[in-house]
Amino acid sequence: MTGSLYEEVQHFYGRQMRHLDEGEVTEWAATFTEDGVFAANARPHPQEGRAAIEQGAREAAQRLADAGIRHRHWLGMLEVAAQPDGLVLAKTYALIVATPKGGPAAVHLSCSCEDQLVRVDGELKVRHRRVHRDDLPA
Amino acid sequence: MTGSLYEEVQHFYGRQMRHLDEGEVTEWAATFTEDGVFAANARPHPQEGRAAIEQGAREAAQRLADAGIRHRHWLGMLEVAAQPDGLVLAKTYALIVATPKGGPAAVHLSCSCEDQLVRVDGELKVRHRRVHRDDLPA
Amino acid sequence: MTGSLYEEVQHFYGRQMRHLDEGEVTEWAATFTEDGVFAANARPHPQEGRAAIEQGAREAAQRLADAGIRHRHWLGMLEVAAQPDGLVLAKTYALIVATPKGGPAAVHLSCSCEDQLVRVDGELKVRHRRVHRDDLPA
Repeated sequence: MTGSLYEEVQHFYGRQMRHLDEGEVTEWAATFTEDGVFAANARPHPQEGRAAIEQGAREAAQRLADAGIRHRHWLGMLEVAAQPDGLVLAKTYALIVATPKGGPAAVHLSCSCEDQLVRVDGELKVRHRRVHRDDLPA
Repeated sequence: MTGSLYEEVQHFYGRQMRHLDEGEVTEWAATFTEDGVFAANARPHPQEGRAAIEQGAREAAQRLADAGIRHRHWLGMLEVAAQPDGLVLAKTYALIVATPKGGPAAVHLSCSCEDQLVRVDGELKVRHRRVHRDDLPA
Repeated sequence: MTGSLYEEVQHFYGRQMRHLDEGEVTEWAATFTEDGVFAANARPHPQEGRAAIEQGAREAAQRLADAGIRHRHWLGMLEVAAQPDGLVLAKTYALIVATPKGGPAAVHLSCSCEDQLVRVDGELKVRHRRVHRDDLPA
């Protein structure tokens, strides 16, 4: 690929969220830095570090599998700002679409997402993610 | 950014619709030209000029705030065609997702959107926007 | 346009799905190769060849017109991998939004999509598409 940073972030998100939605939780956790933080207004405490991020994804994947529900995470309306120190700030909207086996698909959650991305060995990783669910208070 | 026109339009839409959804109505209006026109099959008359576009957004933002509803405008499935005179024609699908405080997110409206974009001091601005709500007659 | 392959695929999908949603079934079929295959877990047999793909779209368009329903196909979360032989593998999520005349828009289906794209006279075409509806078994 010879694209720009903007496109690289789009591509990164395609890979990253597919890992999550396919239950590839180790690969999902590896899209964060070792000390990556995943904060959300839906949780009292952020997930801190890859092991916690992987464990959180594993539990969520199990709950979905038990319930027979497929989630699809869409990130869109991307804004990217490269900082002088190499940090990349990325803002997106996030839409989670849920489909039960044999049942109707529906919007599950609407969120906004703010990422701090850094390069590790040339690849983008999330160092800090903050997800804000639109139905919950800030 | 060193991306293409296609990407520039994607990025522009990310900024523009976030302004609208965050209630930044002056910044939203500034993404149109001074004489910009915002036409929609949901309205009997187009909004003409930045002041009218800002006022329309202000009233809509107030209605949403009063109702405790957050809107997220997604633009996607972009097609871009640069004209010889510098005009940029951009077609998108638009999805409005609504989330009431404490309540479930849902698709609010599905639309198509046709923009005429021009450059003002190097920056893209909307000179004419036509939004077509899929539930209403043309 | 001077963009990358990733962007070219995004642009291609914008054109392609708009053809489908606007009922331009000949133009839709022309986005596949002459021997293109469109497989889906919702159908017992794939559509094979442009004529079958066009006929399938024509029947679907007629059913939607009879029912007064507008579909919008969104493809997103794109991953692209160019193969050494020129084949382009593209993975997306697909969301179909349905709007009845005068009625509320809603998510109709959530799917994943895997395409094999090739160049014919310089233009991308779908040689093979596999769509997986999330509500149905693999």
